Amino acid sequence: MAPTSTASPASAAVRLPSRVQAALDDFLAAQAQVLAEVAPECADLLDGIRDLLRGGKRLRPAFCYWGYRGAGGADGDGIVDVGAALELFQAAALIHDDLMDDSDTRRGLPSSHRRFAALHSGSGWSGGAERFGLAGAVLSGDLCLGWSDELFSTARLPAEAIARARSVFSLMRTQLMGGQYLDVLEQASAAGADPAGAVERARRVVRFKSAKYSMEHPLLLGGRLAGAGEELLASYSTIGLALGEAFQLRDDVLGTFGDPGVTGKPAGDDLREGKRTVLVALALQEATPSQAAVVDELLGDPDLDRDGVERLRGVLVDTGAAADVERRIEALVQEACDALEAADVDDTTRTALHELLVAATARQS
Amino acid sequence: MAPTSTASPASAAVRLPSRVQAALDDFLAAQAQVLAEVAPECADLLDGIRDLLRGGKRLRPAFCYWGYRGAGGADGDGIVDVGAALELFQAAALIHDDLMDDSDTRRGLPSSHRRFAALHSGSGWSGGAERFGLAGAVLSGDLCLGWSDELFSTARLPAEAIARARSVFSLMRTQLMGGQYLDVLEQASAAGADPAGAVERARRVVRFKSAKYSMEHPLLLGGRLAGAGEELLASYSTIGLALGEAFQLRDDVLGTFGDPGVTGKPAGDDLREGKRTVLVALALQEATPSQAAVVDELLGDPDLDRDGVERLRGVLVDTGAAADVERRIEALVQEACDALEAADVDDTTRTALHELLVAATARQS
Repeated sequence: MAPTSTASPASAAVRLPSRVQAALDDFLAAQAQVLAEVAPECADLLDGIRDLLRGGKRLRPAFCYWGYRGAGGADGDGIVDVGAALELFQAAALIHDDLMDDSDTRRGLPSSHRRFAALHSGSGWSGGAERFGLAGAVLSGDLCLGWSDELFSTARLPAEAIARARSVFSLMRTQLMGGQYLDVLEQASAAGADPAGAVERARRVVRFKSAKYSMEHPLLLGGRLAGAGEELLASYSTIGLALGEAFQLRDDVLGTFGDPGVTGKPAGDDLREGKRTVLVALALQEATPSQAAVVDELLGDPDLDRDGVERLRGVLVDTGAAADVERRIEALVQEACDALEAADVDDTTRTALHELLVAATARQS
Repeated sequence: MAPTSTASPASAAVRLPSRVQAALDDFLAAQAQVLAEVAPECADLLDGIRDLLRGGKRLRPAFCYWGYRGAGGADGDGIVDVGAALELFQAAALIHDDLMDDSDTRRGLPSSHRRFAALHSGSGWSGGAERFGLAGAVLSGDLCLGWSDELFSTARLPAEAIARARSVFSLMRTQLMGGQYLDVLEQASAAGADPAGAVERARRVVRFKSAKYSMEHPLLLGGRLAGAGEELLASYSTIGLALGEAFQLRDDVLGTFGDPGVTGKPAGDDLREGKRTVLVALALQEATPSQAAVVDELLGDPDLDRDGVERLRGVLVDTGAAADVERRIEALVQEACDALEAADVDDTTRTALHELLVAATARQS
């Protein structure tokens, strides 16, 4: 697979990333005033959120935008506001997810709880730095959650459009939280669970924690805002779910086999974290007893060294799981492409969505 | 102060608590369906939230309801929905607050993170129970935050009414998160800070973490929903802020001097937690060096015994801080009463708000 440029013709034409950034900047500037009235020190909350929001692929705003355009919505500031609201929602999810996983970094920066812990240590305050970090991350995520809703609700679109799309927005939130709980539960209870059901359970986590909110819901949100009919919405669902699952499977492959120089994450990071990915579940389903023993011994070992990473990778390859995942990605991408081909959208939208589709699944970072 | 019955004539007439409970039950039943689609295990999230929401004084819905009635709004299901949304918001704040403070109990039940930690331990899962508890509480609070917004946005009221009130709802969220951060910061940095500014800083925490969102914002929300004019909204602000501060000061007094048999909390709980209340700040302002040394030594000692509690209480009384707080409560209640007397509301509303005002500040638990 050739690396794909993100500055593709159709998406470059609408300059979406910079417009989303401008909407976020304006919104955060207004919130800075509100927080400054509480106390100047609240700037610490805002700075962390602002830094986090500078990064990211802006995938969700792009799917939302093209879902809107594909349903006949005209380019304008309102749909960019909704895209920015999705970025705020994503920021909330990342901040709280990193806290739950105790991750050190995010988008090349310290994670939110690490940032606040460092602020505490550097200031010589009393009480534990870790506890302060936890509080800072909880509150930063809560702010982003509330702001996401505020920006969605006050987007520069007709009130009826927003009312029409609200149920998608609400469903997205509840399903993501449920999916995240299922993920946490799966990590905790996987060791003793039957491997037969593990692939299905891992796919369910992917569907609810990733596919729906990263691709399906943004597409549906855009579609609903523009008043799309049921048929187009059904196409969007098919495209979004298939692509979303492919996207997450690609993420799992990169988290296990990715080149640290390109991904920006340590090699085999997912293995050290003990993530119960579809990749791992497939391997365990086919593993011999001695291969299964390697997984039991090494997966989730935070001190896993280069040799351990290689041994685990060996099991994932030798069981055929790695190849199986690539086949699944290919089939899912094909499913999404077919649905996109058949969808009743204009050619500009089809081209743009196709570019996004390729960029999301053929990426190397 | 005589104990005040909560089943007072004016509020009993509208049966608000049971109607709020019914609205919550209906809403949670619908969300149970959404979560069941993700996975049956998500019932654990819902059960904890449901149990928490059975308790509480329903103060915020009451202020919201009477703010609405006072501005000419007619009794109906919609304003009850908004009250229920406020209870969901409060639940989110409590769940995350308990996690940040590492509190064991809430409303006589294990706090959310303790509940999930116990589920983990009892199930024999792998990984740390505490970490699982953290994740359960983060996600439970996030769900309540999202649901609070969902119920507010879909309340059975005209869309224009909700649009009119939305800015209050959004401001409430941001100011509360800012106020909570300020509180956490104050606990961490208070030891080295100047005592001269401490009273003002503690009052600021009270204003943003408690007074605004417990009383002022519910009143304003009700007023805006009914289309209140600026003059009435200004009265509501005065009433809400004065009463809200008095309410929190009463809370501080009960947390320090309250009877465990009535409050349901261990004696001197706030002292053991090291809360930097207005009470403590006033004491430090007037303390002799030896009194200040007692506070430095004992405040925030998690193992503080009966004797230590008595010594700290002694300083709070001897410095005149306890009496000062009572005078402040009295003056704030008077300010709220005067503003209520002058407000342009009907007599039923005035009576109901007066009852709430007395119940909120003369309470013993």
